[in-house]
Amino acid sequence: MASRLPELKADCLLVSSPANVRYLSGFAGSNGLILLTSRETHFFTDPRYAIDATETIGRQGIAKVHVVKGPLSTAAAAIVKRKHLKKIAFESASTLYDQYIHLQEQLPLGASLVSAGKIIEERRMIKSASEIATIRESVNVNSQAYERALKRVRPGVRELDIAAEIEFQMKMLGAEKPSFDTIVAAGARTALPHAHPTDYRLGQNELLLIDMGASLRGYSSDMTRVAHLGRVPSRIREMYQAVFEAQLAGIDAVRPGTAAGAVDTATRNVLKKYKLDKAFVHSTGHGLGLEIHELPRLGRKDATVLQPGMAITIEPGVYVEGVGGIRIEDTVLVTQTGCEILTPTSKEFVRL
Amino acid sequence: MASRLPELKADCLLVSSPANVRYLSGFAGSNGLILLTSRETHFFTDPRYAIDATETIGRQGIAKVHVVKGPLSTAAAAIVKRKHLKKIAFESASTLYDQYIHLQEQLPLGASLVSAGKIIEERRMIKSASEIATIRESVNVNSQAYERALKRVRPGVRELDIAAEIEFQMKMLGAEKPSFDTIVAAGARTALPHAHPTDYRLGQNELLLIDMGASLRGYSSDMTRVAHLGRVPSRIREMYQAVFEAQLAGIDAVRPGTAAGAVDTATRNVLKKYKLDKAFVHSTGHGLGLEIHELPRLGRKDATVLQPGMAITIEPGVYVEGVGGIRIEDTVLVTQTGCEILTPTSKEFVRL
Repeated sequence: MASRLPELKADCLLVSSPANVRYLSGFAGSNGLILLTSRETHFFTDPRYAIDATETIGRQGIAKVHVVKGPLSTAAAAIVKRKHLKKIAFESASTLYDQYIHLQEQLPLGASLVSAGKIIEERRMIKSASEIATIRESVNVNSQAYERALKRVRPGVRELDIAAEIEFQMKMLGAEKPSFDTIVAAGARTALPHAHPTDYRLGQNELLLIDMGASLRGYSSDMTRVAHLGRVPSRIREMYQAVFEAQLAGIDAVRPGTAAGAVDTATRNVLKKYKLDKAFVHSTGHGLGLEIHELPRLGRKDATVLQPGMAITIEPGVYVEGVGGIRIEDTVLVTQTGCEILTPTSKEFVRL
Repeated sequence: MASRLPELKADCLLVSSPANVRYLSGFAGSNGLILLTSRETHFFTDPRYAIDATETIGRQGIAKVHVVKGPLSTAAAAIVKRKHLKKIAFESASTLYDQYIHLQEQLPLGASLVSAGKIIEERRMIKSASEIATIRESVNVNSQAYERALKRVRPGVRELDIAAEIEFQMKMLGAEKPSFDTIVAAGARTALPHAHPTDYRLGQNELLLIDMGASLRGYSSDMTRVAHLGRVPSRIREMYQAVFEAQLAGIDAVRPGTAAGAVDTATRNVLKKYKLDKAFVHSTGHGLGLEIHELPRLGRKDATVLQPGMAITIEPGVYVEGVGGIRIEDTVLVTQTGCEILTPTSKEFVRL
C-alpha cells in the first residue's frame, strides 16, 4: 500500500471508508481509521473495539493500534504533527464535508489535504484468490437460500413473508446478513425496479421478482430471478425472452480488455431489437465485493477496462408500468479468456 | 420548513441526507434530493423511482417531481440558476466532500454554498404524535421478536442461529428489517460491546447478551437484554446489579429541561459507586427515529436540553475482558413530566 504514496504525491494516506479499512486491516467495526506513511501503519479505533483491535490487528502486526476517545482524526492528526508530515492524502469520495473541515482544523500549520481519489477502491476491483473464494461461497449460499425460500411460495403468501424466509435461510446457511434490502415484488409492483417488500399477498396468476444478495464474511453476492404463478401471459413471456437474450449478450461481451461500457451496449442493443430499450432504466451492472456496489460501473459511458479477477453483476431489466418488470441478474467473474458465471441458479422462466 | 430559510440566511436549502429526505417527503428510496425555496419545493430522483415518486410525492402535492438521468444535484443547480438564487444552504454533515465539489462546480457564477448545520436533524429530535405511534409499534414488535426468539435459546445453539431467529421473527411481526446488525454474544464475547454473532455455540453455563432493534415503516427501536444459562457466578450477578441500578438512575434523570449530559452523569455515578465506571466505555444513549443514531447524544458533555417528544435510549454497560459484559437498554420517550419507558420487556436477570 505504502508503495502508492509517491504516486499520490503525499507523505501519508488517511483511509476512513469502512470498506477500505476492512480491506486493508480486516477490521469490521463501525469506527476505524488507518494512517499509512511510507514506513508505518497506524490503526485508530474507540474503546468499544479495544479488545477486538488489539487481538487481531495489533497481535498480527498489521498496524500499530491506538485506542482513543473522541474523534479518531484528532489522534491521526497528532501523529501527522509529530512526524512532520506535510501532504496528507484523504478519501475525498467517502469523507463528509464536515469531517474534512474538522480534519483540516486539526492539522498543524503547513500541512495540507489532497484528494487520494479512489486508489483503494481501484485496487479492490481486482479480487485476490481468497476474496474470489469468499464471493463464490456468498453466491452459493445466496442461491441455496433462494431455492429453499422458493419452495414456500404460493398464492396468499405476502411479499414480506418471502423476504423474511430468504433472509432467514441465508443466515442459517452462514451469511451474516443480506448484502442489501431484499427485493420481493409481485404483479404490477415488479415494474418498480427497487420495490420494498410489502404485505401484498400473491395472487393465483402473477409475476414474482426477487433480487437478493448475501453478505458472507463481508463479501457480497447479487442475483435477480423472476418466476410466475399460474399461466404466463404472452406479453410477459416476450419480455422475459428479450431480457434473457440481453443478459446472455452481456455475459458474452465480458472479457479482459473490453470496456465496461461495451457490455452495457451489448445488453441495450438486444433490448432495442425488441423495442424495449426505453424500458431499461438503469445500467447493466456493477462490481461487488466488500460493498454491494463497487467499481467498475457497467454503464453506457464507463471506460474502465475489464480485467481478470473483477467480480461484476450482469443485470438488464425492463419495466412497463401497469404490466410488470423483468430483470435477470448473475454475479460473474472476469477470467483470462472471458468470464465465469458464478451464480448456479437456472435462468429458465420458472412457473410456480 | 421554508420558514427556516431566513434564519439560515440562505435563498434555498438543499436536502440530501436520505433520512431527512424521507422525513420531509415520505420518499424511502436510495436516491432523492429536495430543493426548498421560500415558495417552492422540488423533488429529484432517477428513473428507477419515477413511478413511486410521481404516485406519492407528485400526486399528493408535496413537491414538484423531477425525474432525471445523471447526478440529481446537476438538475437542482439548473433550478438555482433559473431562479437566480444566490445563497444555497447544504447539509454539510451528510454531504461527501466530492459531492460538495461537484455541486460547487454546477452552480452559476455568484452563487455560493453555506452550511445548513443540522436544522432538519434538530427538528427531527421532537417526534410528532404519528412518529411516536410508529416508534411504539417498532418497540413492541422488537420486544415480541425477542420473546419468541428467547424460547429457542438452549445450550448448543449458535449465536448466529439466535440472530437469524430474532430477525425472522421481527419481519414476520411487521418490521421491514433490523434497525442495525443484531448483536448476539455469549460467554466472554459479551465483553465486546459490538460483537457480531458468530458460529460459537452456547455452553451450559454462560452469559448471553442480545442487542436488537427493528425498523418498522422506517422507524427504529433499540433494546439490550442479558440472560444467563445455568448457574450465575456472583461476579456477574454483582455486575448486573450495578448496571441495573445505573440504568434506573438514568431513566430517573430523564425529564424536560435536563441536559442530556446530566443523564450520562447519573448512570456513570452509580457505576462509580461499584468501581465499574472505567468499564463503561461508551455513552449512556442516543436519540432514535428514522435513523438508529440521532440527536441528542447522551454523552458526558452533551448540553442538549431534553424536551417532550424526544425518543432516546438509556443503555449503560460494563465490559470486563475475560469475564463478560452487561448492558441493559430501553427505548424511552421524554414526556411533560419525566419519561415513559416504551420497552415492555422485563429487566429481571433471566436465567435460562
